[in-house]
Amino acid sequence: MLVGPGDDAAVLRAPDGRVVVTTDLLIEGRHFRRDWSSGYDIGRKAAAQNLADVAAMGAVPTGIVVGLGAPADTGLDWLDALTDGFRDECAEAGASVVGGDMSRSDIVVLGVTAFGDLGGRAPVTRSGARPGDVVAVTGRLGHAAAGLALLEAGRADDPGGPWRPALVDAHRRPRPPYRRGPEAAGLGATAMIDVSDGLVQDLGHIAEASRVAIAIDPAALPVPGSLAEAAAELGADPLEWVLTGGDDHALAATFPREVRLPSGWTIIGEVAEGEGVQVAGRRVSQGGWDHFRL
Amino acid sequence: MLVGPGDDAAVLRAPDGRVVVTTDLLIEGRHFRRDWSSGYDIGRKAAAQNLADVAAMGAVPTGIVVGLGAPADTGLDWLDALTDGFRDECAEAGASVVGGDMSRSDIVVLGVTAFGDLGGRAPVTRSGARPGDVVAVTGRLGHAAAGLALLEAGRADDPGGPWRPALVDAHRRPRPPYRRGPEAAGLGATAMIDVSDGLVQDLGHIAEASRVAIAIDPAALPVPGSLAEAAAELGADPLEWVLTGGDDHALAATFPREVRLPSGWTIIGEVAEGEGVQVAGRRVSQGGWDHFRL
Repeated sequence: MLVGPGDDAAVLRAPDGRVVVTTDLLIEGRHFRRDWSSGYDIGRKAAAQNLADVAAMGAVPTGIVVGLGAPADTGLDWLDALTDGFRDECAEAGASVVGGDMSRSDIVVLGVTAFGDLGGRAPVTRSGARPGDVVAVTGRLGHAAAGLALLEAGRADDPGGPWRPALVDAHRRPRPPYRRGPEAAGLGATAMIDVSDGLVQDLGHIAEASRVAIAIDPAALPVPGSLAEAAAELGADPLEWVLTGGDDHALAATFPREVRLPSGWTIIGEVAEGEGVQVAGRRVSQGGWDHFRL
Repeated sequence: MLVGPGDDAAVLRAPDGRVVVTTDLLIEGRHFRRDWSSGYDIGRKAAAQNLADVAAMGAVPTGIVVGLGAPADTGLDWLDALTDGFRDECAEAGASVVGGDMSRSDIVVLGVTAFGDLGGRAPVTRSGARPGDVVAVTGRLGHAAAGLALLEAGRADDPGGPWRPALVDAHRRPRPPYRRGPEAAGLGATAMIDVSDGLVQDLGHIAEASRVAIAIDPAALPVPGSLAEAAAELGADPLEWVLTGGDDHALAATFPREVRLPSGWTIIGEVAEGEGVQVAGRRVSQGGWDHFRL
């Protein structure tokens, strides 16, 4: 950054002559709970979900600004931890906190805006997928949903299973594969999206914007043992978490079939003429996998 | 803009290779009241206060992104009006709405982030004022405070005085002198600030950041008849509104003494060695004019 916090505005480098910009509002009780997540984790997650949107355009994250509303009795320790979370998640993505604004509010409200640099590349939007492309994902899918299910069932602190704290941690702190976004752009990705609403729904956004159909092969989806064990305990379907769980901020992208994808990417389906998203050959609605199961 | 709303992120031009960024969170009941301001006026004001921060760096506003939290029962008419307000205020400043995010919330919350382009100029920060510089202002001072006082006294709709609706409107909708920010930068302003906390307090920010003293001559301050009439009716001091009222988003800047300021700028004081802000030769605290009067 060229001018940091403390003036009317910050000045951020934009060497490419363009700047990628995304914003989210996070509201206590709707997007996070202070009894389920620490200030530090809330800061990391709020930064992560915006920085992942930047990466999903094929850009390298450069900075964030934060508007914070907090009750007058919010502890300084909590605010410090929140700030540390923002800083550490930015560092993870190669970015920094360049400015902010603080107000009083009855509940905690966070307005996060993130920026990125395209490094001369074209932005990868949702609208460029073409019939014949392959669909690939990178990053975790369904982990955060499984962690949330454990918290909601009151089973987060039960004994047994190293997967338990790992999945709860995945809910509290996503780990978006930031560098995979610019990598995908460099490889010639035709469309890309940050998986925040769930894989089926987010691929539906690509299908709609690109006016194509997307077919997912569920057998190709990564379902690690941790998800299977948590699902067995809760009587849930691990594939449902993978297909509909958001909040892990994986990246899903489409590539020309001839592109050789580096390890870390998993091909899970293909793009065809038509519309909508199919799983194992059956059309699923925007609402997701649940509707398919009925 | 290059990529607009509807993707993971927007892409905004930053031809200068740098981008000016500022953010604010506005919370219903604290920063605005839906019974005192229409959705349209709230949109205009929320945009204006951020765009004015961009201008105060000497930059030309280019765009805003908006995070909106609103109750489920918020009328579509109200949301449309809010959106129109954002759009029209951006147009006033030469900018556009490039993206947004919407969530449910129990009260209306707005997270606004604004961007600007420096056009090759150095940013004008708060820290460059030098002893010998003159202090000048442009834009309205005290109008919004007078309008708020009329609303608080329940006298906003009383008959009599064309100044009455004009001042109430000034509270609802500031008119920042956007183009004066880049103008000041081009004239060689050494420091600049958007007057949002009140003139004394905001000049105090310049004095502190620049490690100088600022002396204001109250006789030089613009006190129009409308303020005098409203003050007479409410038993208030119009100079207090001018010295401590924020929300008009005037610009205050310091210039080398030899700079010939175009009409529209009013010289109100000078920069000296020392610290703090003096009005009529008496030091006033950061708290503002009230403390001076005691």
